[in-house]
Amino acid sequence: MNRIAIYPGTFDPFTNGHLDIVTRVRDLFDRVVVAVTNNPSKTPLFTTEERVALIRESVSAFPSVEVDAFEGLLVDYAKQKSAKVILRGLRAVSDFEYELQMALMNRWLNAGIETFFMAPNAEHSFLSSGLVKEVASYGGDVHKLVPECVGAALTGKISKSSG
Amino acid sequence: MNRIAIYPGTFDPFTNGHLDIVTRVRDLFDRVVVAVTNNPSKTPLFTTEERVALIRESVSAFPSVEVDAFEGLLVDYAKQKSAKVILRGLRAVSDFEYELQMALMNRWLNAGIETFFMAPNAEHSFLSSGLVKEVASYGGDVHKLVPECVGAALTGKISKSSG
Amino acid sequence: MNRIAIYPGTFDPFTNGHLDIVTRVRDLFDRVVVAVTNNPSKTPLFTTEERVALIRESVSAFPSVEVDAFEGLLVDYAKQKSAKVILRGLRAVSDFEYELQMALMNRWLNAGIETFFMAPNAEHSFLSSGLVKEVASYGGDVHKLVPECVGAALTGKISKSSG
Amino acid sequence: MNRIAIYPGTFDPFTNGHLDIVTRVRDLFDRVVVAVTNNPSKTPLFTTEERVALIRESVSAFPSVEVDAFEGLLVDYAKQKSAKVILRGLRAVSDFEYELQMALMNRWLNAGIETFFMAPNAEHSFLSSGLVKEVASYGGDVHKLVPECVGAALTGKISKSSG
Amino acid sequence: MNRIAIYPGTFDPFTNGHLDIVTRVRDLFDRVVVAVTNNPSKTPLFTTEERVALIRESVSAFPSVEVDAFEGLLVDYAKQKSAKVILRGLRAVSDFEYELQMALMNRWLNAGIETFFMAPNAEHSFLSSGLVKEVASYGGDVHKLVPECVGAALTGKISKSSG
Amino acid sequence: MNRIAIYPGTFDPFTNGHLDIVTRVRDLFDRVVVAVTNNPSKTPLFTTEERVALIRESVSAFPSVEVDAFEGLLVDYAKQKSAKVILRGLRAVSDFEYELQMALMNRWLNAGIETFFMAPNAEHSFLSSGLVKEVASYGGDVHKLVPECVGAALTGKISKSSG
Repeated sequence: MNRIAIYPGTFDPFTNGHLDIVTRVRDLFDRVVVAVTNNPSKTPLFTTEERVALIRESVSAFPSVEVDAFEGLLVDYAKQKSAKVILRGLRAVSDFEYELQMALMNRWLNAGIETFFMAPNAEHSFLSSGLVKEVASYGGDVHKLVPECVGAALTGKISKSSG
Repeated sequence: MNRIAIYPGTFDPFTNGHLDIVTRVRDLFDRVVVAVTNNPSKTPLFTTEERVALIRESVSAFPSVEVDAFEGLLVDYAKQKSAKVILRGLRAVSDFEYELQMALMNRWLNAGIETFFMAPNAEHSFLSSGLVKEVASYGGDVHKLVPECVGAALTGKISKSSG
Repeated sequence: MNRIAIYPGTFDPFTNGHLDIVTRVRDLFDRVVVAVTNNPSKTPLFTTEERVALIRESVSAFPSVEVDAFEGLLVDYAKQKSAKVILRGLRAVSDFEYELQMALMNRWLNAGIETFFMAPNAEHSFLSSGLVKEVASYGGDVHKLVPECVGAALTGKISKSSG
Repeated sequence: MNRIAIYPGTFDPFTNGHLDIVTRVRDLFDRVVVAVTNNPSKTPLFTTEERVALIRESVSAFPSVEVDAFEGLLVDYAKQKSAKVILRGLRAVSDFEYELQMALMNRWLNAGIETFFMAPNAEHSFLSSGLVKEVASYGGDVHKLVPECVGAALTGKISKSSG
Repeated sequence: MNRIAIYPGTFDPFTNGHLDIVTRVRDLFDRVVVAVTNNPSKTPLFTTEERVALIRESVSAFPSVEVDAFEGLLVDYAKQKSAKVILRGLRAVSDFEYELQMALMNRWLNAGIETFFMAPNAEHSFLSSGLVKEVASYGGDVHKLVPECVGAALTGKISKSSG
Repeated sequence: MNRIAIYPGTFDPFTNGHLDIVTRVRDLFDRVVVAVTNNPSKTPLFTTEERVALIRESVSAFPSVEVDAFEGLLVDYAKQKSAKVILRGLRAVSDFEYELQMALMNRWLNAGIETFFMAPNAEHSFLSSGLVKEVASYGGDVHKLVPECVGAALTGKISKSSG
């Protein structure tokens, strides 16, 4: 039986914290699908296509990792992908509460799909996409906090918006 | 490759919340080892042997689930069992903090072993081994909160101690 | 002396979690006023009038329960209703903090009004108005999470917005 | 119908924070029973009888307040007292989690009894029986943190233990 | 060596809780800079200039306290001011998590700057700029929660917006 | 004016997390007193004298740092040392709550002494004295988590207790 896990997120942008999670789980399942949520009600810095492309470049060395985008209910997408597992990174207590609520709702919607929560690496415990964008927007140097291609893309976005 | 997960705990006693987790993960890995910790500094209600026997009876219908006891460092035990994954159920925020700390320490001790945290079922969200023992000790009826064999064993222990 | 309690909220929409709280408290006070906040700075899915009507239908079997809408300070509204008690359901830790802050502010504004916090039912612990709207907007089936009339109204709103 | 609320606790000792809660709720119910738990597994500073006597003296001005001691399951005691409501003061997040778990367990044991949680006064937010005992044991002045009779009793206990 | 601390914040508006922190730390450093963040993405009630002026008036009795505004990264501003310490007031658990994340990010950006977190006074534990604005907007009396000049300014803003 | 800070703790044993805090604050005050609490009700692994000696060796390179032991109320000790500041490292949410409570109690006992809370380094976020002792007791290698002299002392204690 193929064991497939979904790693869903906004990934706006994909950070070294996300990359670390993919690196750690890539051999624990037969396939890991990094799934970019295409949330129409938010205005991301990067388009869904840009985010998918940046993640693909960041994880290109991992043959068991697939990058995709999806809209709609996560449990429906997981079913369509034949995935039995959803992976979520946790950082803080407030993350934990919201994630627990989502996991219980997802289990209520489809009891056959399990959510596994993961701890960040200690060195990434302060890292979030939002904070990376905030620091970058003020000219702070974030290139050690994100994959190389993401750092370049961030610089491009920000110089364009302030240019 | 065989994918093996350890589900460690004190299990004093094994509750329906624990059983629910085993039920949900038993097909997500090739083997799940329920591992009873033999902590010499605590005085459990049930001996390690009793706890192993009660869990074996509770999960006897699941061929992929093994029940064992261990002493010493969890990461050493996991390595000896060729397990790459540790499973932990979470309930409350204070659980989460302690579990996160343990997961980071375990990763520091052995970077090749990953901890997956799981949400309890909504209906088990208030259930803990300690609360079950407390209610049972006051004569409260806990037989719907634990596997049948555990309920019988609890009744036996308590009538003996108060007899 | 008549003992009157206010159960204030946005109720956008009223869920089975809210209904469960009203059901449990309806006989603990002489009158319970479910009070819909009419917050001009938010854009709810349902108008205040629609929310009042849906709650009235949901609690029509309870003679001691009144449904109303209000604007302004909750403590002023409570005073006007001769209520000495405010009831609030709690779910997560972050709820708790905000609610505690509001309760202390309300007590500072009017020391004669007490806030009682209540635990959700275990089975409703993941339920929130926001999550119900999110799931419904993606075509998920939420009719077991809300009163029947709310389920029908949600279907109507969503088919209209996507029609 | 008589509306009776139980306010259970260890009260070792009764502090101004506890007194403040009793003062605030004494008119919201027909009767409030302050119920001292007689937990055989803990070694309190004051005996159950001493705690009951100190609370009786502290609340002697409130005719609707009764002071009692109990052993066993709280829900059984509440039923015996015809109480439909349990009152619990909350202070911190970890209180909240444990209290939520107890409230859900108590509801599971007896669905007809509701737990109401209350916020401490802002000025009492740091006050706990344990901290009062710790400060008093080091000779710190706690007489403004507890009722007068409790302060005198604390001084007596401590001078005896160090005398 | 001059020891300089930055106390950064939005201060929209400056409350008695903020004033209490400045009062307590003003003699613990050679200079304390209250630094108003000029966040272009938020719409504050008071302009940066108004906030600086109100804080200057509120702290005019403290010769060691300077009031300033800044844009950009806090660590860059701290360096420019030769400050080694950032001061942050904490209130709730969710504050704590976000503040911890910011402190770790700031330390990552500049290891030579330390963040000290401070507890609010018990009587200010429910006080926040947001809650003050909300209560004032509904006509609630907040003049005991803010410095006198801030109370007058709030009244002016609100009568203008509703006039 | 001399600015003196107390850094109190059990330090059983002193870890690299504690050392990191001392390293970061040693130049922010004129003197930093690492103060070992001599709590008669706990049974530490190391005696107060051993803990003082190990910390002295660990911080011997820092001329502004003094190591001492104390019994009794922290605020009394701080006053005796002419310290206006207490320093406390924070790790988790439950730490934060307890520490906040202690800080408010200490301020109530002596309003002239301020508590500053500090974030751990990201890499030390999972490190605690208790966890170090637990891992060491099972033969785990902790020498990178503690100062060299503490590692040697831990090995000595444990081989003696199991020898």
